[in-house]
Amino acid sequence: MRRHKIALIPGDGIGSDVITAGREVLDALAGADGGFGFDFESFDWGSDRYRRTGKMMPDDGVDTLRGFDAIYFGAVGDPEIPDHITLWELRLAICQGLDQYANVRPSRLLPNITGPLRPELGRDIDWVIVRENSEGEYAGAGGRAHRGLPIEVGLDVSVFTRAGIERVCRFACELAMSRPRKKLTVVTKSNAQRHGMVLWDEVCRCVIKDFPALDVDWMLVDAMTMRLVLRPGTVDTVLATNLHADVLSDLASALSGSLGIGATANLAPDRSTPSMFEPIHGSGFDLIGKGIANPIGAFWSAVMMLEHLGEAQAAARLMAAIEQVTAEGVALTPDLGGTARTGEVTAAVIGILQRQS
Amino acid sequence: MRRHKIALIPGDGIGSDVITAGREVLDALAGADGGFGFDFESFDWGSDRYRRTGKMMPDDGVDTLRGFDAIYFGAVGDPEIPDHITLWELRLAICQGLDQYANVRPSRLLPNITGPLRPELGRDIDWVIVRENSEGEYAGAGGRAHRGLPIEVGLDVSVFTRAGIERVCRFACELAMSRPRKKLTVVTKSNAQRHGMVLWDEVCRCVIKDFPALDVDWMLVDAMTMRLVLRPGTVDTVLATNLHADVLSDLASALSGSLGIGATANLAPDRSTPSMFEPIHGSGFDLIGKGIANPIGAFWSAVMMLEHLGEAQAAARLMAAIEQVTAEGVALTPDLGGTARTGEVTAAVIGILQRQS
Ligand SMILES: CC(C)[C@H](C(=O)O)[C@@H](O)C(=O)O
Ligand SMILES: CC(C)[C@H](C(=O)O)[C@@H](O)C(=O)O
Repeated sequence: MRRHKIALIPGDGIGSDVITAGREVLDALAGADGGFGFDFESFDWGSDRYRRTGKMMPDDGVDTLRGFDAIYFGAVGDPEIPDHITLWELRLAICQGLDQYANVRPSRLLPNITGPLRPELGRDIDWVIVRENSEGEYAGAGGRAHRGLPIEVGLDVSVFTRAGIERVCRFACELAMSRPRKKLTVVTKSNAQRHGMVLWDEVCRCVIKDFPALDVDWMLVDAMTMRLVLRPGTVDTVLATNLHADVLSDLASALSGSLGIGATANLAPDRSTPSMFEPIHGSGFDLIGKGIANPIGAFWSAVMMLEHLGEAQAAARLMAAIEQVTAEGVALTPDLGGTARTGEVTAAVIGILQRQS
Repeated sequence: MRRHKIALIPGDGIGSDVITAGREVLDALAGADGGFGFDFESFDWGSDRYRRTGKMMPDDGVDTLRGFDAIYFGAVGDPEIPDHITLWELRLAICQGLDQYANVRPSRLLPNITGPLRPELGRDIDWVIVRENSEGEYAGAGGRAHRGLPIEVGLDVSVFTRAGIERVCRFACELAMSRPRKKLTVVTKSNAQRHGMVLWDEVCRCVIKDFPALDVDWMLVDAMTMRLVLRPGTVDTVLATNLHADVLSDLASALSGSLGIGATANLAPDRSTPSMFEPIHGSGFDLIGKGIANPIGAFWSAVMMLEHLGEAQAAARLMAAIEQVTAEGVALTPDLGGTARTGEVTAAVIGILQRQS
């Protein structure tokens, strides 16, 4: 039996609700299949730990994770602790420390979900956004001069490297080639940002030459938001910088109906370090303790984790179960217009998985 | 009689179609009112001039403009000439040279226009986006090292100054206070961009203290795109950096139904230099010579120019005429689902203005 060693990091807020739900679903899948199993280990890293110890995770946290096949992450963020601590000392420390340079975010309008677009537009949403996840606007570089004085200057520096662009562009091209439409949109803003973004264009133009069968077009990031809402059916795979893709993927997830649905993979494509899978909804302060967090984002992230672990069949079964739950519409959380609790959605998915087998 | 001295810069592509239309409408307004008039002077600056002379505008172009009360600008951009020439040597040279630091972009779903959002969401769009227009991500700063080598690095530097943030934030607060809802959303991304954007937050937090009656909230730029599509009615006035507002305003204009409608004012609020008014659609290569460019963006920009010139009544009359044209729906260009030509929309607006008086 194949065994997969998974690090669970529920993190903050509703992270633990949805990771608990996701783990139940993963166990149900493994039990029903029989061909594989999981060894889970859970870590209490996050804002509560920071309050107790002054650290979001132990100093050797990133190294501890190297021993796992994958990381299943809940959420991070706390109203009392600044983002530069919660985010940079946990989630970004892991992504950057393990060189998970390709962030992948699929968006689809799941069956029976009402998005904000007119139905004839919304039903065309079927996108994968590839986000450069290791450099660019999130390099953390910059500084301030004349602090506090009238002449103060603050600088944020976006850092792009040829190697960093090359690898994520190649990854995006391969991903786009694996999808039926073989279509990639490269997003840029080199008309305004005339140095690093021009390098981005040059390197991408060079990499895509290796994929002659790929249908490539280019968009400025501002125009891309327009295209997502006015001509959603013309988009398939999208490659964008760390910040541009952050914005485009939040928009994509809103257009799919709810932040509670979105899933992310932070991939280290060469597999020398583990990849990390997480719902995109964040810690959801307003939902804490209510038991109504939408677990679908965590389930969809589990689908991506199963694919990465080579369990394609189990991944497909779980995705089908998610789609059946939204199609039936009886076990939907309040963000999707229903009244179900997290546990009821989880039970519905597990019920479907058990009936499948 | 009050006379306003206006510099016309039709620029590239459909710029001349819509500026010609806008000038006719302005002349009709002045003629009907009698209390004011225009002295127009037209400049042939743009890509054709670049092809002839190697310059988008004369070396003393910016200084020439100082003598005018306002600038009415068409579009710039040419498929044969790189953006860093067309854009930076004309439009950005004027905006930055005349210190037009506040870019203002109103968005509304005009009567009878179908936007991409479900009608119950779309009808709530009534926003003004204030874009910092003089620094930030458009400072042009940055560079490249190890050019062409595998270890190449490219840097784009966003430059924020205390003075630059202070003045645009104050402008946005005053604008928000002048609107019925007295509501401002300050957009940031300081959780990821930890130097200049943190200065942005600090300075904005300080400026808004001077406006105790203002209802202020803060959003991350990624979450802001969500809010625009999922809860449009909760948004009124928005302040964002040069790049963030570029993205948000393109999205806003798409949500209002067509890029052909959007209007912009590049304001020098202290009035020591002229301000510039322009439709946001750009040079529209695919529409050149067809005579079907939508002039409404140029008309709406003329409304903003009239307001800036102190002709509030004429501005209101023109806006009412634009709304009557879309409401009647008989003179709409193809981008709005109609079959009218630029000239027919113009004639319809002029006809309404003449019947008003
Ligand atoms: C929490 C925030 C810093 C993060 C990001 O900007 O990357 C989030 O928006 C995301 O998209 O995962
Ligand atoms: C043409 C382009 C550089 C410009 C910008 O990015 O400012 C445009 O998108 C705009 O919004 O006016």
